[in-house]
Amino acid sequence: MKRSFFLLGVLITCQLFSQTDTEIIKNIYNASLSNGQSYQWLDHLSNQIGSRLSGSLGAEKAVQYTKEELDKLGLDKVWLQPVMVPKWVRGNPEFAYIETAPGKTISVNICALGGSVATPLQGVKANVVEVHSLEELETLGREKIEGKIVFFNRPMDATQINTFTAYGGCVDQRGSGAKEATKFGAVGVIVRSMNLRLDDFPHTGGTNYGDTPINQRIPAAAISTNHAELLSSLLKIDKDVKFYFKQSCQQLADVQSYNVIGEITGSEFPKEIIVVGGHLDSWDLGDGAHDDGAGCTQSMDVVRLLKETGVKPKRTIRVVLFMNEENGMRGGNEYAKVAKQKGEKHVFALESDSGGFTPRGFSFDCDDASFNQVLNWKPLFEPYLIHYFVKGGSGADIGPLKDGKVVLAGLRPDTQRYFDYHHAANDTFDAINKRELELGAATMTSLVYLVDKYGFNSIGSSAQLKD
Amino acid sequence: MKRSFFLLGVLITCQLFSQTDTEIIKNIYNASLSNGQSYQWLDHLSNQIGSRLSGSLGAEKAVQYTKEELDKLGLDKVWLQPVMVPKWVRGNPEFAYIETAPGKTISVNICALGGSVATPLQGVKANVVEVHSLEELETLGREKIEGKIVFFNRPMDATQINTFTAYGGCVDQRGSGAKEATKFGAVGVIVRSMNLRLDDFPHTGGTNYGDTPINQRIPAAAISTNHAELLSSLLKIDKDVKFYFKQSCQQLADVQSYNVIGEITGSEFPKEIIVVGGHLDSWDLGDGAHDDGAGCTQSMDVVRLLKETGVKPKRTIRVVLFMNEENGMRGGNEYAKVAKQKGEKHVFALESDSGGFTPRGFSFDCDDASFNQVLNWKPLFEPYLIHYFVKGGSGADIGPLKDGKVVLAGLRPDTQRYFDYHHAANDTFDAINKRELELGAATMTSLVYLVDKYGFNSIGSSAQLKD
Repeated sequence: MKRSFFLLGVLITCQLFSQTDTEIIKNIYNASLSNGQSYQWLDHLSNQIGSRLSGSLGAEKAVQYTKEELDKLGLDKVWLQPVMVPKWVRGNPEFAYIETAPGKTISVNICALGGSVATPLQGVKANVVEVHSLEELETLGREKIEGKIVFFNRPMDATQINTFTAYGGCVDQRGSGAKEATKFGAVGVIVRSMNLRLDDFPHTGGTNYGDTPINQRIPAAAISTNHAELLSSLLKIDKDVKFYFKQSCQQLADVQSYNVIGEITGSEFPKEIIVVGGHLDSWDLGDGAHDDGAGCTQSMDVVRLLKETGVKPKRTIRVVLFMNEENGMRGGNEYAKVAKQKGEKHVFALESDSGGFTPRGFSFDCDDASFNQVLNWKPLFEPYLIHYFVKGGSGADIGPLKDGKVVLAGLRPDTQRYFDYHHAANDTFDAINKRELELGAATMTSLVYLVDKYGFNSIGSSAQLKD
Repeated sequence: MKRSFFLLGVLITCQLFSQTDTEIIKNIYNASLSNGQSYQWLDHLSNQIGSRLSGSLGAEKAVQYTKEELDKLGLDKVWLQPVMVPKWVRGNPEFAYIETAPGKTISVNICALGGSVATPLQGVKANVVEVHSLEELETLGREKIEGKIVFFNRPMDATQINTFTAYGGCVDQRGSGAKEATKFGAVGVIVRSMNLRLDDFPHTGGTNYGDTPINQRIPAAAISTNHAELLSSLLKIDKDVKFYFKQSCQQLADVQSYNVIGEITGSEFPKEIIVVGGHLDSWDLGDGAHDDGAGCTQSMDVVRLLKETGVKPKRTIRVVLFMNEENGMRGGNEYAKVAKQKGEKHVFALESDSGGFTPRGFSFDCDDASFNQVLNWKPLFEPYLIHYFVKGGSGADIGPLKDGKVVLAGLRPDTQRYFDYHHAANDTFDAINKRELELGAATMTSLVYLVDKYGFNSIGSSAQLKD
């Protein structure tokens, strides 16, 4: 019966949008697909600037470039919000091999995990203990781990339809592997790349030593899935094979950086703020086209598309390009801190940080009443094959805004290819399809348009007006 | 009110499947994603055999290979169905340039359209008249067309969400451009590639001269979208620029080929046949990975997945790899002709011929009662993000089976990238994502499982059994 009430509810409430909405949303999609800017901006960000790790020259250039581009849009306000960010550098290219017998070696592809310490200058060579979970370290104990390199090799679960679920089920190895292995006397950590595909790219990503004293930290690297399979096979033949790796990464002092912000000030409720954003920083191996150049340029195009289609927002629409999502979350935290200090009222925040693939829908972090309100708009998205409206997480950068009132949402594109590229050297512009990116920008713009027009009744935003 | 009746209808009938169905479908998806064969088969078909234009050595090898692979599956019957197919060959690589002034030329990328005649040995050079529709030829008339090359340059409509709709709105230029231009004395036809992206690949595809006498046929080629833009720009500057092209393609005598067929004979209703298939032939420029190696290997995996997950079909499940979809439709026509001669009863046919991308749903060509029955199964597909169930076309190869009773369906994957590759040299294995292909195979298998179990009440297939 619950189901029938729900469906009848849809019937009763599905008049909560108008023919005008249908037309405006059509205009938004048409404008994005025929005259969008997201792809051109991303081309520049990816191919002219490149990777944008926090504190790097690329990140600095990206701040300048996106501010300049926002300046050109004729917004009411564009500014840089200062934030100090960590600066971790990879140093010289990493080098690694498997030694099956003295003098017999096979080179393998690794990359240092973000935040990892360097190996000693001469590298680390040791026997390998393969494990499939953090818990397995406990079972093995210090006796079997001390002096060895721990090889975390639990693959992502291919049977998960949502690849982010598979990622979530695996990433503890990368995030906490080094910290946990240290406790048992390991000398290094090698983690199977978070990649559902078998290929030759190592995928980086942050590792967290927690409160492990700096002089006790052990180096950690990711290995490509193909070479993880190779290492595992060789260990099955001979558990005494050795692994060697060398990396020279280091953590430098924090540096000044910025969130890039632009806004259209609301015509009726200027103090009610709607945020749309992505993160401007990226890892250093590719050019961060999917993660998260796509989300940034889509967000920039949200405010441009609103202007192009003649929408004059009642509420303030703010595009925020957050700095330092990948290895510190400083930008998201700073934005929320400043908003709180200023007593700003955020009614809605939408993040795109799941790749520039065909959009499928949104995930909403909000109360039931607001979610039900959003569900009423679902028919408006059906012509664009947007069908996936769920309650769940939103985005890392907008998470700090959470206050029990603001509605948070994340764009949910098709996930099947995302981890082929995530944090790897092949996360480059050529992996972006123009139409898919533009459909995402249009889908975001349409939702922002609806939220601006109708507000959220349940969270005390100003009442919706008649059409 | 119509809508509310429909929704209540869903509520009332949504019990028409069981918990067992949920579990079996989960098993099918798990098996495809963790142990699927479609990707490995497609790897061989694409990389070891390559393109498979009807009558080519590649097509012959593909027949042998897929028959051998079906033989290994332990089906009840595997056979080759003979069919004579046309043999068109491209000959030497085409060559073309734009001549802006005597001796000043710019090379451009073209490919002969399938079925086109050759140019004279020395090529064709003439002034160009750019048009955007077949109708525009009438308006211009013989006076402005005679002795010229007609350049069809209407682009695909970027604002169409379904790219097949954009294709359908454009492909008359390729299909009928040469035939129509002949009537006005044109000496050649150049068609903008059916591609939504601006790039350097010319896209082939069939052109049809109708009953134009052979000695009056004019050569026709596709030009890459980038070079179509260039040619159009140059014509705007100077309408007297000339175009030269040379191609040596020819139509040879028909040759013997085959549809490849395998079946699991039904345990209860062996005379009720369910077909699942794709077309084994491809154009000659790429390796036909998306069009339609993907559909073939997905279809092969349908019967394998049914066996692997322990489903014992009640009806006969037949995988059919059709020959000659691209330039003749001989295989599809022959299959239907033989089925009719034998008095076979086909209850359902499903084709996959829209690329190996993330599946979104199905399009059904059937009566309302059968479609409503299918809609009852939709909740079973929701966990796999399959949401798109519409009435519409099915597939070219199964079309000839249409008799007012059989239910026809086409798999509908995400369409955004399809025309980046369609009929072009980049339709190759590297454009296939393993998981997307496997999700398609699982989605097809799940629908075949349900149709086999429950039949279609409205078309006189045997009654469904209790679970």
